[in-house]
Amino acid sequence: MTSVYQKMTDAELDAALADLERQADELRALNLKLDMARGKPSPEQTALSRPMLDLVTSETDLADQGVDADNYGAPDGLPSARALAAELIGVDAANVSVIGSSSLNLMYDCVEHGYVHGIAGNEPWCRQGEVKFLCPVPGYDRHFTVTESFGITNVPVPMREDGPDMDVVREYVEKDATVKGIWCVPKYANPTGVTYSDEVVRAFAALRPAAPDFRIFWDNAYAVHTFAGEGDELLNIFDALAEAGAENLVYEFASTAKVTFPSSGMAWVAASPADMADLRRAFAAMRVSPEKISQLAHVRFLRDAAGVAAHMRRHAELVAPRFALVEEKLTEGLGGLDCATWTHPRGGYFVSFEGPEGSAKAVVKLAGELGVKLTPAGAPFPYGNDPRDANIRIAPTYPTLEELGQALDVFVVAVKLVAARLARAERA
Amino acid sequence: MTSVYQKMTDAELDAALADLERQADELRALNLKLDMARGKPSPEQTALSRPMLDLVTSETDLADQGVDADNYGAPDGLPSARALAAELIGVDAANVSVIGSSSLNLMYDCVEHGYVHGIAGNEPWCRQGEVKFLCPVPGYDRHFTVTESFGITNVPVPMREDGPDMDVVREYVEKDATVKGIWCVPKYANPTGVTYSDEVVRAFAALRPAAPDFRIFWDNAYAVHTFAGEGDELLNIFDALAEAGAENLVYEFASTAKVTFPSSGMAWVAASPADMADLRRAFAAMRVSPEKISQLAHVRFLRDAAGVAAHMRRHAELVAPRFALVEEKLTEGLGGLDCATWTHPRGGYFVSFEGPEGSAKAVVKLAGELGVKLTPAGAPFPYGNDPRDANIRIAPTYPTLEELGQALDVFVVAVKLVAARLARAERA
Repeated sequence: MTSVYQKMTDAELDAALADLERQADELRALNLKLDMARGKPSPEQTALSRPMLDLVTSETDLADQGVDADNYGAPDGLPSARALAAELIGVDAANVSVIGSSSLNLMYDCVEHGYVHGIAGNEPWCRQGEVKFLCPVPGYDRHFTVTESFGITNVPVPMREDGPDMDVVREYVEKDATVKGIWCVPKYANPTGVTYSDEVVRAFAALRPAAPDFRIFWDNAYAVHTFAGEGDELLNIFDALAEAGAENLVYEFASTAKVTFPSSGMAWVAASPADMADLRRAFAAMRVSPEKISQLAHVRFLRDAAGVAAHMRRHAELVAPRFALVEEKLTEGLGGLDCATWTHPRGGYFVSFEGPEGSAKAVVKLAGELGVKLTPAGAPFPYGNDPRDANIRIAPTYPTLEELGQALDVFVVAVKLVAARLARAERA
Repeated sequence: MTSVYQKMTDAELDAALADLERQADELRALNLKLDMARGKPSPEQTALSRPMLDLVTSETDLADQGVDADNYGAPDGLPSARALAAELIGVDAANVSVIGSSSLNLMYDCVEHGYVHGIAGNEPWCRQGEVKFLCPVPGYDRHFTVTESFGITNVPVPMREDGPDMDVVREYVEKDATVKGIWCVPKYANPTGVTYSDEVVRAFAALRPAAPDFRIFWDNAYAVHTFAGEGDELLNIFDALAEAGAENLVYEFASTAKVTFPSSGMAWVAASPADMADLRRAFAAMRVSPEKISQLAHVRFLRDAAGVAAHMRRHAELVAPRFALVEEKLTEGLGGLDCATWTHPRGGYFVSFEGPEGSAKAVVKLAGELGVKLTPAGAPFPYGNDPRDANIRIAPTYPTLEELGQALDVFVVAVKLVAARLARAERA
């Protein structure tokens, strides 16, 4: 892609640069303090769940199908919480453990299980020399941080418009027994917004790993986070496994972090019966039993998948206009300049933006100087290394619409100015 | 100790055995189903905290000193939750992280940090060959399970009436660099009820470990769990460290598990500034941020140390009579028989019982047959191995007083019958 700035004459480019520098100076003078860095629901969104706080009171029956929510016990969570969690991702409640408020913590614990105890009786990874995880990129930085913290080698794998490049994934997984896992966000992926196609999901289910202790870490974080209508349809990975005659291949994770209250929701893991038995043994050493009062409030508030869908439509009313504004501002500001592309998600929390090669760090730095905080460039790549230095993750949910509009105006000017500067530098 | 049964003539012993067998048969016929196995608050106790459930509602201001409880952020917990946690154990709030509802989970994470990442930049334990933890016995089985799950060698150390035998501890810690930790419950210890003396606490603070990555795991689980009056006074370990000119030696843990709702309380860890910085780096990979709605409810309900003390007096009104009944029934049933000793705690959740050598497994089995479930014999020892097979942990809090009385009657008969059978077997 050759940008409009690259096509200009020297004189045109100098004029464009001068104009953009002037626009940047004007924005700098506004002393803005805006934030597009965090995949965080807005205060209006969390307020939607406030009625939940009235549903468990001193007068409430704290028993759930014979389990007391206010005492030790039920290491897999309350029966009704397991039923809700299972329904939301389409699995059998018997194969679900609802534990804590952070699905990232459960993912960490599963990696730790492989590293320390060994998955399904296999040699612990800490005794196997170098082991690797595949990281579709751009992806979720905190996933990569988990495996990096264990000294596991994070190997980037390209994302395509229908999911990870499965030829690359298959080659690694089926030929290299040091590959022990892959990080996936299969629906409205962080940050691309991609939902894996049925073909990709079936290709995952058809993997025949070289390592018996390889697992797919299927982080279905945005299972119900649709902007409008029915949203994208994700094939159920466990159904695909059954079709493929495979089992003990997937750990699926989800939570209500962005359904109710981030950090105070409920999180869960699902797997095959054998894998769940293996995980339960590990979890039994890690903790006594999960907080169940919060689980009780959640099931009384959300009730079932239909209740969750209705609640998520209220979130969508707040979130969709912000994503529409991103699309509008980027199209208006950058359309036709041939210097950037971006994704057009139908759900989730992010837009993935690609500027000119070598621009991302400079854009994030310049936007910061102009008062707009962005996710650090490179964050969606293992070790923070975007080899093209082109990708920027846009997180539009937290600011107000007005703030978001201002932040996007700044972002557009920053992208254009950096693109023009790069075009100028090419000629030097 | 020579028991009354051992001193009997053969004829007397036969008569005593026949009488005890008859008593056992009568108890068996009652088809009791009682439980003295679990260190679990009774329903009356958890009901004391129900008013907490009315303090955070849809109308509540969810901000705490500028931190929104209903969104991501504050990885160390709400400011006011940290202040409460710090006050309860007498440390600076800056050195406290309030995370989750399970202090056992935090202890696990700290062991995991040493095993996987290495404490304070030292080589991870998983790369150091055999490493050991000291386990004062009898102690808390779940502590031992944590280290055992990592393949760490659990080494028993004798408990005395004022805490662990510090000569043995010092010898291990100061001479053996493979010793990386010690499990301590310094106040109302599980199961002995012992509170460590000032001398013992100072001896801990004076330890000069051979290993730079040795830490004392100071599980102050029963800091405020007193039956009457002011209760035992535990010297503040961090004050003792300051006196001794030591630092980076202790991880202290506590929770409100048995103050409010087990599994739905708040748990915390405290350490030196350098150790906390080290732990925070590890925790940052493990989870996003802690559930803070529950923390908000806790601080609004408990307020401060005085509020907690007042609340714990209400617990004591329910718990103290149960411990008094244990003392009464054991004295009445076993006093003067010279076949058993037991502890007389002034707080906590357990009585530690010592029967004749070789009796504990048989007593637990027999009591089970007579309808009373006890903690498995050996549980308070590493690998479940009580070398004398004499210790039984009694957990009297959960049953009603009436059930507890019945359970203790069964227990007394089981102890006497097993003691008499052992005396008979000696003569065979």
